[in-house]
Amino acid sequence: MSHKDFPSLSSENEKELVERLSQWSLANGLVMYPPNWQLHSANNAPITMFPTPFPKDLFENAMKVQTTFNKLYANVVSHEKIWLVDLIKSLAVFDKEFTGQLYETYKKAVEASDGELPQPLSLGVFRSDYMYNQTDHSVKQIEFNTVSISFGGLSTKVGAAHNYLNKSGVYDDDYSLKYYQPGELPVSDSINQIAEGLAQGNYFYNDETDNQKTVVLFVVQPGERNCFDQRLIEYALLENHGIKSYRSTLEEIKEKTTINSGKLYIKATMDEVSVVYYRSGYAPTDYTVNPEKTWDARLHLEVSKAIKCPSLLTQLSGSKKVQQVLTDASRVKEILGDVPQEELDSLLSTFVKIHPLDDTKAGREAKRLALEEPQNFVLKPQREGGGNNVYKEDIPGHLKALDESEWGAYVLMELIHPPTHKNKIIKDGQIYREDIISELGIFGTLVFNEETGEIKSNENAGFLLRSKFSSSDEGGVAAGFGCVDTVYLY
Amino acid sequence: MSHKDFPSLSSENEKELVERLSQWSLANGLVMYPPNWQLHSANNAPITMFPTPFPKDLFENAMKVQTTFNKLYANVVSHEKIWLVDLIKSLAVFDKEFTGQLYETYKKAVEASDGELPQPLSLGVFRSDYMYNQTDHSVKQIEFNTVSISFGGLSTKVGAAHNYLNKSGVYDDDYSLKYYQPGELPVSDSINQIAEGLAQGNYFYNDETDNQKTVVLFVVQPGERNCFDQRLIEYALLENHGIKSYRSTLEEIKEKTTINSGKLYIKATMDEVSVVYYRSGYAPTDYTVNPEKTWDARLHLEVSKAIKCPSLLTQLSGSKKVQQVLTDASRVKEILGDVPQEELDSLLSTFVKIHPLDDTKAGREAKRLALEEPQNFVLKPQREGGGNNVYKEDIPGHLKALDESEWGAYVLMELIHPPTHKNKIIKDGQIYREDIISELGIFGTLVFNEETGEIKSNENAGFLLRSKFSSSDEGGVAAGFGCVDTVYLY
Repeated sequence: MSHKDFPSLSSENEKELVERLSQWSLANGLVMYPPNWQLHSANNAPITMFPTPFPKDLFENAMKVQTTFNKLYANVVSHEKIWLVDLIKSLAVFDKEFTGQLYETYKKAVEASDGELPQPLSLGVFRSDYMYNQTDHSVKQIEFNTVSISFGGLSTKVGAAHNYLNKSGVYDDDYSLKYYQPGELPVSDSINQIAEGLAQGNYFYNDETDNQKTVVLFVVQPGERNCFDQRLIEYALLENHGIKSYRSTLEEIKEKTTINSGKLYIKATMDEVSVVYYRSGYAPTDYTVNPEKTWDARLHLEVSKAIKCPSLLTQLSGSKKVQQVLTDASRVKEILGDVPQEELDSLLSTFVKIHPLDDTKAGREAKRLALEEPQNFVLKPQREGGGNNVYKEDIPGHLKALDESEWGAYVLMELIHPPTHKNKIIKDGQIYREDIISELGIFGTLVFNEETGEIKSNENAGFLLRSKFSSSDEGGVAAGFGCVDTVYLY
Repeated sequence: MSHKDFPSLSSENEKELVERLSQWSLANGLVMYPPNWQLHSANNAPITMFPTPFPKDLFENAMKVQTTFNKLYANVVSHEKIWLVDLIKSLAVFDKEFTGQLYETYKKAVEASDGELPQPLSLGVFRSDYMYNQTDHSVKQIEFNTVSISFGGLSTKVGAAHNYLNKSGVYDDDYSLKYYQPGELPVSDSINQIAEGLAQGNYFYNDETDNQKTVVLFVVQPGERNCFDQRLIEYALLENHGIKSYRSTLEEIKEKTTINSGKLYIKATMDEVSVVYYRSGYAPTDYTVNPEKTWDARLHLEVSKAIKCPSLLTQLSGSKKVQQVLTDASRVKEILGDVPQEELDSLLSTFVKIHPLDDTKAGREAKRLALEEPQNFVLKPQREGGGNNVYKEDIPGHLKALDESEWGAYVLMELIHPPTHKNKIIKDGQIYREDIISELGIFGTLVFNEETGEIKSNENAGFLLRSKFSSSDEGGVAAGFGCVDTVYLY
């Protein structure tokens, strides 16, 4: 099991490559708005110069288990609802402003609907993130994302970009041949697949008819710089399915939409909304500027008959705490029900140990590990949105600064040992040459009934490789920028 | 024969439209580099907000006659070579620096090859430009372009952009319906068709085999801001035909290419060049900075066995003088040979009167018209590259400032009376609201043998609508900027 090195290019050929890659990106929508952007001008998105090696068998395993993961989370939300709600309730104590508010909004929505769900159908557009763990040649799950997953659009594009470079010969310094062979550089079909997922939501909303009169509402962040990643999905939704879409920030929701007989409408056109697709609302910062308005908007959408992608409860099922509980094999088997043993084993093989920091026996042992063997762990807060992890030797100090009653807001996760690669990152015309580490994300979509647990559709929806600099100290992940990458399968 | 007005939108809906159009453009390669550009950042290309009305029957007629025009120019270059060379020789006197140099380079190439063409096959990627003449409901030819025709790439994109807006409902202020009906907004397939033309050249160069080892060389201007228009064709060439391409300025040609046994090679890779595709070399300014180097590069390419798109003689056949002579119906019939009368009539219907300003009887009459009835005419120089036309009342003064012996450098062309439309142009985030006039370009490609006249392929290659402000004075064309547009057929 070995892989080719990255192409070794003369400085002249590298210059040619960067020109081709930059212009391809600008000609094909592999773009982002820069900070302080103007509507009419975009930059290349940050990407790697070369695809990054990833073991083929593990890539395939991660792809294969996605629909099982989809089903697992659907079952948690539907069949295990009481348990899930209790769990969230206990977490809310530690994170009042976000998990707490999500939970409160969920409760209000249930009350407003007299205990019945206004729309039992729920749409999941998920992404399960993994790293390659070199020590035992496995992929290990980092987290399961249930809300506002991004880069499905740009992932397709960067795959196409690297394939273009390979086909055009510039990865080969000498003979202008294809450096990578057929099958080694798969292109993620995530643009079409995620659009297909939204279309499935639309289809079931319309009671299993293709009704082009209903639309999808993208709930987006104000001033979104990554809007092209989202637009690409909008275009596929229109092109492939004839379904129109609108965009609104949480702040604008009450101004732009109205509810009539439970149904959600775009005010300007009176188009009926079949699916509310959140590309915002996943982090506390999405609510901090206008808390009253934004939480009210969230409630407004939740009580409508539109299918939410995700519903509040589905979003909450992505808490680290749920992920931690699900590392218990017998519990997984219980929740998944009747699945083939092989499928279950594949799924379980992706788990690292995740420990609770509570007063159970396991929790007390975890507290000891956190303080005495921190070098093997990462401490993660329960809530969504990255950047808050605490690594290794920083863990004891971090915990000690908190009252022990607050430790339950975190889970303790065994560190994964990914390989580093000497790829290059291109950002804003600059080339950065440092060791990178990569995270593989697998997209999945499903439509399920939160009341009955019935799964209406369950699909794999492509993949994503994100790479970032590995920090020089301790092998942890630097807070520096990441970029979109592709897999070179070996 | 009437057409719908442009959509009438509220300012709020217009804002939504501009946001959608801008982001679609940036996500789909409808872009250009701004002045003083950086490699990693591009702007929306200047485009119209709405498609511009164009009569369907005339659009179809213009499309239909393209292959006849292709053939006409192929026959001029092959069967009428002696006449053409004599004509060019006489024109060279008036325009020594450009037409004269093209002609001298042609002569040198013929001498260097002992009178034989190093490559008898010639590739034409042409564009015939028309305006709608309201007074007699016809399309009238403005000019026939034989070199470096542009906007085949962006034309496809702007067609798709306007179709996207129409499909997404934002052209309709009230109900978010499709404002334009199926068939009213055709999308030019010029990206694929022009790539197909280049691939045909490659195919015949390789002696009728698909040989992916030969490549196409794009000869481009230094610092080309419209490179995406060209790149889109490169991508289609690679994607649809597996043919690689390289780019070089005239200045770099000798450094980047070499000739071995008559064959042209890219030095860096020793890839053999099948087709030299000029997107430069059409205007005097392409040679003025480094005249020796650039003319030498032109000769270097001309004497190679690569197929030129176009050859020097084919480029020269695009002179206004040739166009003028070809307005004589009997001469056209003679050159075209055996074509159906209907086809000939369609072609002839697109001609306006073009008069020579020489010492023939017709020329003397033209001189009288130029001085006494200038309001009906535009004075055009023989050579390529716009911006040098003299309109109406400015003609007598312009001619009188020249020695009469120099008048032969011009032709006198009857003015066409196009309608104006109140479309809006979006450029660099600004909206311009003025009357515009539009020019319809029809693309065509053909491979022919310059020695025998044999036509190997002859294809229609899509279309282009360009619009620009009509100047407020005299109905002439302002020197201001133009933009890419689409037809709304009615």
